Amino acid sequence: MNLISNETLQPFDFILFGGTGDLSIRKLIPSLYFRHCEGQLPEDSRIIATARSDMDTAGFRSMLNTDVREHIDDNDFNADSWKEFLDLVYYHPLDVTDPESYRPLVDTLAGREEYVRVFYLSVAPSLFTQITNGVHAAGLITEKSRVALEKPLGRDRASAEEINDRLSAVFNEDQIYRIDHYLGKETVQNLLALRFGNAFFEPLWRSERINDVQITIAEDLGVEGRGAFYDQTGALRDMVQNHLLQLLVILAMEPPVSIDPDAVRDEKIKVLRALKPLAGIDAIENSVRGQYKAGAYGTGPVPGYLDNDDIPNDSSTETFVAIRAEIGSWRWEGVPFFLRTGKRMESKTTEIVINFKKVPHSIFPTADGFSTPNQLIIRLQPEESIRMRIYVKAWGDDIQLQPVYLNLDFNDVFQKRKMIAYERLLMDVIRGNQTLFMRRDEVAAAWAWIDPIRAAWEQYQYLPKSYTAGTWGPGASNALISKDGLRWNED
Amino acid sequence: MNLISNETLQPFDFILFGGTGDLSIRKLIPSLYFRHCEGQLPEDSRIIATARSDMDTAGFRSMLNTDVREHIDDNDFNADSWKEFLDLVYYHPLDVTDPESYRPLVDTLAGREEYVRVFYLSVAPSLFTQITNGVHAAGLITEKSRVALEKPLGRDRASAEEINDRLSAVFNEDQIYRIDHYLGKETVQNLLALRFGNAFFEPLWRSERINDVQITIAEDLGVEGRGAFYDQTGALRDMVQNHLLQLLVILAMEPPVSIDPDAVRDEKIKVLRALKPLAGIDAIENSVRGQYKAGAYGTGPVPGYLDNDDIPNDSSTETFVAIRAEIGSWRWEGVPFFLRTGKRMESKTTEIVINFKKVPHSIFPTADGFSTPNQLIIRLQPEESIRMRIYVKAWGDDIQLQPVYLNLDFNDVFQKRKMIAYERLLMDVIRGNQTLFMRRDEVAAAWAWIDPIRAAWEQYQYLPKSYTAGTWGPGASNALISKDGLRWNED
Repeated sequence: MNLISNETLQPFDFILFGGTGDLSIRKLIPSLYFRHCEGQLPEDSRIIATARSDMDTAGFRSMLNTDVREHIDDNDFNADSWKEFLDLVYYHPLDVTDPESYRPLVDTLAGREEYVRVFYLSVAPSLFTQITNGVHAAGLITEKSRVALEKPLGRDRASAEEINDRLSAVFNEDQIYRIDHYLGKETVQNLLALRFGNAFFEPLWRSERINDVQITIAEDLGVEGRGAFYDQTGALRDMVQNHLLQLLVILAMEPPVSIDPDAVRDEKIKVLRALKPLAGIDAIENSVRGQYKAGAYGTGPVPGYLDNDDIPNDSSTETFVAIRAEIGSWRWEGVPFFLRTGKRMESKTTEIVINFKKVPHSIFPTADGFSTPNQLIIRLQPEESIRMRIYVKAWGDDIQLQPVYLNLDFNDVFQKRKMIAYERLLMDVIRGNQTLFMRRDEVAAAWAWIDPIRAAWEQYQYLPKSYTAGTWGPGASNALISKDGLRWNED
Repeated sequence: MNLISNETLQPFDFILFGGTGDLSIRKLIPSLYFRHCEGQLPEDSRIIATARSDMDTAGFRSMLNTDVREHIDDNDFNADSWKEFLDLVYYHPLDVTDPESYRPLVDTLAGREEYVRVFYLSVAPSLFTQITNGVHAAGLITEKSRVALEKPLGRDRASAEEINDRLSAVFNEDQIYRIDHYLGKETVQNLLALRFGNAFFEPLWRSERINDVQITIAEDLGVEGRGAFYDQTGALRDMVQNHLLQLLVILAMEPPVSIDPDAVRDEKIKVLRALKPLAGIDAIENSVRGQYKAGAYGTGPVPGYLDNDDIPNDSSTETFVAIRAEIGSWRWEGVPFFLRTGKRMESKTTEIVINFKKVPHSIFPTADGFSTPNQLIIRLQPEESIRMRIYVKAWGDDIQLQPVYLNLDFNDVFQKRKMIAYERLLMDVIRGNQTLFMRRDEVAAAWAWIDPIRAAWEQYQYLPKSYTAGTWGPGASNALISKDGLRWNED
């Protein structure tokens, strides 16, 4: 049953700005290679990389031969396919600020106006406008053109709207693909399948049955290497506004009438708009900022955030955020959603924990087993899995309830290479399916909820609490959740 | 959390009528031995076996040494414990029809009136009255006495009431333990834990969410060795009236206010009384009788039912029954419960299958995956397990829903010897906990539902359909369930 990608793929030109960049080398080009192995790159399609570096196609291909190759597992590598793939790849040096330098691109694309044309902007946001203006001025934007871009889409609502205004000047909204790569992850898409492909979960998926929801994106690494960027951004903008809110929204949305892009995105935005605003003292009471100090990870010591050379000594940028959010809706009234993300945490873990309410009445005379009620854990990292905690009678001459887990590990089930999140997303851009991309009003609504939190932090001079690298964040994070009589799932 | 057996075990005398019989040797004495290994037989307790055979305690113990020993797995056997256990075992020859022969029992029990006293009748039902009258006449029934007996409790409601009347003449209802050994099975008790120890299942456990329920007790063996008894009984009396209805009732009952015996049994009887009567043509249309003919099982041919020497050539006894039952209640209106049991079926399988309703609306454009909706399978045999069929998105560049199973195999979880069902039940008799035993009105209510089915079969001369040994029963069984557009779960 092919539910989304039943569109036939048409020949395309994939113009990759930032073609020598880290994301291109680690994710984008490997993703296209894997799709080629699956026979998804129609004949005569081209991948045209551009960047400042002065080299030719042969030089670029030879660079891919070494640099990209090392990001492809030997088990997934096929020399013949790779060779075929490289034949589809071209390179033009391009200085995006110089109108003249678009010329070779124009020549290359001449006569290919009927092909799908993707402008993929894997570049710093400051270049977005220059590139869109550049390709526009060069007359490269066709009816079948699409532009794809990565976060950060602005620093707040105003700057995001400015970027979107500029994009809108040269592209229609249905040509714009705003990428949150979390939406390309199998487990995130599986949330849709679980919720709406099963009759099991929907009756349970509401405030009458659910006590609280916890969403954690914990990174084990620090900011080494990208401190300058990170210090201008912080965890709230870098992770909460996009990835965490996207997980929240897919988890909480009402059933869409179909999987069509606007049906899904209409429901998503309803959740964003139903988020109760956190402003002023409310924001202070329902959020925790943290910043890691030196600690230990794995077998050795690791430096603190302020120990990085590219971070000012007095930086008050947060590397950790916890937020208690609420959704004002019939379905979710009264259910706290705890969001948490941080760098240099105890382990690299991304998980959604749904704690159900206790049974309304225990028919059993003692009830110590019920301190931990039913739980559904949907894990994205370190492994993709579903765990369901239920109680059964332990074997033996009494009725002793014991928690056990119904388990599903996607690796066991599917036993094949897991797609890179980008594979799905790149194909969707080429296919023209916007379901897994953020619509302009979605981005704006997410910022509209985020901005007052940051404003409150400034207003109340709420500085980050320090936490030791390699731990689950500052003590205030535990205090936040324990106000509801709960604790973070850290099993 | 000890929910039932928190009563301290008191010293007891366990008087086992039919002490040399098959059930005693295979199940009852091994069960007592295992409980001794667990330290549950209080000091000075005795197991006093009786039977017709003329032997003394030493002879009986030596018989146990060979005959019982072979029913205990080597891994579970401890020579020291076994020796201690044998010291608790006594034997008196006893002719239950001869009042004089109770004399040695009277002498043995003299002065032990303060001990719990269990009369366990592992004998033919025709002897129930003689034994109860015999122990009564011998003055053996004390305040702390209990009587335990096995099915069959009668052949119909009238004969069951007659047996119960006679029991009531010498025992109070709270001294009478009617055993259905299915209630001693871990998985059956787990139905209570699953339903009422988890908040997950209760919202789903109703006609709004459940499409149909299938309960199968399939035996792979035939009637060899007990044909004479079986031919007088048939599958309806032998399996449906007791085991199948007990499973149905525990599955369907409302939450009891506690696990106390009468709280549970009050709810069970409500279900029995809510079963819609099947009488006359209704019974014919909603039931299937079958009788196996010669076929194959495992590696070789097996004889038909009528090929047994102790079965009349023209017997019309059924070895298979399938019934479509309905429960008239708010919770279950409109949900068909399919019950099925048979001998010489394709495999030894006992399972409860709960088929949930389809999702009300598929948001996905194609829907072939939805022909088989969510399913919960609770298996008692061949293994004890819980399987939950859900749909997830298969890994890959589309949204393809794929059924997968959340699994729980109790062997994996508990990794220890599974108790014999009787261990639990014997201890409950000694403890005086009646929760897992059938109350008189329950037995009567079960017969009250069964009798009209049998009467209809006679009225309409509904003879069993033949089915080949080693299959899932007659074709009429499939026809019965397919009237609802369903099919038996035979994965």
